Amino acid sequence: MNAEIIAVGSELLLGQIVNTNARFLSQQLAGLGINVYFHTVVGDNPDRLKSAIEIAENRADIIIFTGGLGPTKDDLTKETIARHLGKELVMDETALDSIELFFKRTNRVMTDNNRKQALVLNGSHILPNDHGMAPGMVVESGSRIYMLLPGPPKEMEPMFLRYGSEALSSQNKSSEKIVSRVLRFFGIGEAALETEIIDLIDSQSNPTIAPLAGDGEVTLRLTAKHVDENTAQSMLDEVENKINHRLGAFFYGYEDTSLLKEMIKTLKEKKLTITAAESLTGGLFQQELTSISGASSVFHGGIVCYSNEVKQQLLQVHIDTLEKHGAVSEPCAKEMAENALKLFKTDIGISFTGVAGPQELEGKPVGTVYIGIAIKDRQTIVEKLTLGGTREANRNRSVKFGCHFILQNIKMSQNS
Amino acid sequence: MNAEIIAVGSELLLGQIVNTNARFLSQQLAGLGINVYFHTVVGDNPDRLKSAIEIAENRADIIIFTGGLGPTKDDLTKETIARHLGKELVMDETALDSIELFFKRTNRVMTDNNRKQALVLNGSHILPNDHGMAPGMVVESGSRIYMLLPGPPKEMEPMFLRYGSEALSSQNKSSEKIVSRVLRFFGIGEAALETEIIDLIDSQSNPTIAPLAGDGEVTLRLTAKHVDENTAQSMLDEVENKINHRLGAFFYGYEDTSLLKEMIKTLKEKKLTITAAESLTGGLFQQELTSISGASSVFHGGIVCYSNEVKQQLLQVHIDTLEKHGAVSEPCAKEMAENALKLFKTDIGISFTGVAGPQELEGKPVGTVYIGIAIKDRQTIVEKLTLGGTREANRNRSVKFGCHFILQNIKMSQNS
Repeated sequence: MNAEIIAVGSELLLGQIVNTNARFLSQQLAGLGINVYFHTVVGDNPDRLKSAIEIAENRADIIIFTGGLGPTKDDLTKETIARHLGKELVMDETALDSIELFFKRTNRVMTDNNRKQALVLNGSHILPNDHGMAPGMVVESGSRIYMLLPGPPKEMEPMFLRYGSEALSSQNKSSEKIVSRVLRFFGIGEAALETEIIDLIDSQSNPTIAPLAGDGEVTLRLTAKHVDENTAQSMLDEVENKINHRLGAFFYGYEDTSLLKEMIKTLKEKKLTITAAESLTGGLFQQELTSISGASSVFHGGIVCYSNEVKQQLLQVHIDTLEKHGAVSEPCAKEMAENALKLFKTDIGISFTGVAGPQELEGKPVGTVYIGIAIKDRQTIVEKLTLGGTREANRNRSVKFGCHFILQNIKMSQNS
Repeated sequence: MNAEIIAVGSELLLGQIVNTNARFLSQQLAGLGINVYFHTVVGDNPDRLKSAIEIAENRADIIIFTGGLGPTKDDLTKETIARHLGKELVMDETALDSIELFFKRTNRVMTDNNRKQALVLNGSHILPNDHGMAPGMVVESGSRIYMLLPGPPKEMEPMFLRYGSEALSSQNKSSEKIVSRVLRFFGIGEAALETEIIDLIDSQSNPTIAPLAGDGEVTLRLTAKHVDENTAQSMLDEVENKINHRLGAFFYGYEDTSLLKEMIKTLKEKKLTITAAESLTGGLFQQELTSISGASSVFHGGIVCYSNEVKQQLLQVHIDTLEKHGAVSEPCAKEMAENALKLFKTDIGISFTGVAGPQELEGKPVGTVYIGIAIKDRQTIVEKLTLGGTREANRNRSVKFGCHFILQNIKMSQNS
């Protein structure tokens, strides 16, 4: 089975928004074992949409549409497909109830336009919209499957995950179940990771093992096919064990977790608090930490010490340290982490100092980074990194390494 | 003239990356007055690429390709187009020299694969690659224009801006020059802004005025056409004057600037330093400030005070204030801004306190925000906002409002 994704919306062709829906759906379809050969973007124009549908019908078994299910006269995906397939649009009472409820809940006045959103293709399987008004739908015609999804990613993504993915699996003629699992690794490059397990990757086609690098991390997607889902899961367990036997030191989590989320989870479990003294990263570590709701149980505050004066006067870094070693140095990182821990009365203090770029600093090259990890009643650790990216990439990677080092050190304390 | 953008790369169809190139090119083409009716994404497969080219030839005058110009055997855009158009690939000596230079400069060993990157379509106009190896090219065939651009945005975007855009203008049969200008506004919604100038938008087609909303800002793109470029610029000046006569209070800059960049520029001009005390935003303001290289001349450091203890003990906010009014209050925002200014010895102190969500806080609803602006020797101002977005949106919008208020107040001090 292969699929084409057609995004409908003139705002995409004007460059006002990026087609992130195509990316999300492509990832999801890959996970389901469905090949995607084409993405198409077409504007809010019925003739051009019709021609795009006809082209897709010549090259795909599944056609997934995003966008054009809204209340205004620009929104014509449903109408165009109905006409093309010779199907009627009928009012779906469940969808209408849910739209009426949405207006009551938000205290807004419902117009006739909005009723239009409850019209669905006759004979289609409805995908409820838990985050908006327009329902999605799946309809079969000839040997093809047509899936209509709303355009806003905040509606489309949960709809596909909760209802769309299952609808495609159940339409799948094969009786095989496809299950997949994502393993996340940090601290090892894609090439090095692949080399470690190249024999596993090459020697088996079920489960498949697919590496993917991005944002300084590497993930492995394991996909197994079997008529029995439990057996498929066991097949994944077995491969995962083999992989983690070799790469366990770099593994940190499953699916869409992040180093930051894992760090917060572990700090919460161990009832530890953390603070930060940030020079290089200028508040990035703290802003990411507090972007997660509920971080306040492990984080109460921290300092951004961008100049030497602030490091010295507010964070009590010794003037000798700054004069002898400079701000970008192991001793400075150590004092920053330890003094932040004392100042903010926490269990852990982390510090970031370095040269983000584009210019070198104190004669030290761009990408030189020191991260200090002070943990109460333990020897402070300072890790040195040599990064090679842009200013933005160097700051982002430093924060990831910070989370990684904290996770490593908390786990170590568990074993000691 | 209308264009189709074809992105070539299996990584797009696997959802490993998003097609930001299509967005960038669409924006640029809109600025040149060229309509884009379709985007297509196709994998690294010569047969499917050929079929995509044939479909595009039936519906576009200009076909722009991104990707597939690399050194490996996967990269086949040039080869497929050459075969399709019946043109030979020939070695371009200038491109080859530039590739050899690139390897010398980065101390890397050049392989035969890399020589392949200097092959170009016979008779094409070469677009130099200032940020990588693969040159771009433009070739005419029949009544159509084919433009080939590299896939990495860091190579493609500067190449199009510096060379590609001009090549399209010169191929444009019309002798008219198209010039455009973007005006940026903050503090007014799209609908309200449009209402203010709807008569201007509706009454003229040259220059055109196109509003676009996004990220809590509104921009207006003015586009004028004239055989004489200077006359076109004067036409833009005239419309801009009319618009700013009505909306000047909300205007803050041109093209791709940001409130943050304008704030830093103004602080530098006036030799003012700034600090921040962040609760709500958890370091976001400071991290954005320091993401701009050179911010150290106006920013030396600041504090993230996420808990009441940190506000009280390190920032000296009165316990009475916290007990009587709560942390999310005008008096708390005022003390935070004033005390941060004193602690970090700066000219300006800004504070952010509020309820980002998803839960309410101190009985105050999500979206309640207080921003304090303390300026040396002046009365502190506290602005209250009531925002209605997600946690992330509320934090981002608060930082934008912070920059906006500072800009307003520094400008005021200029006039006083």
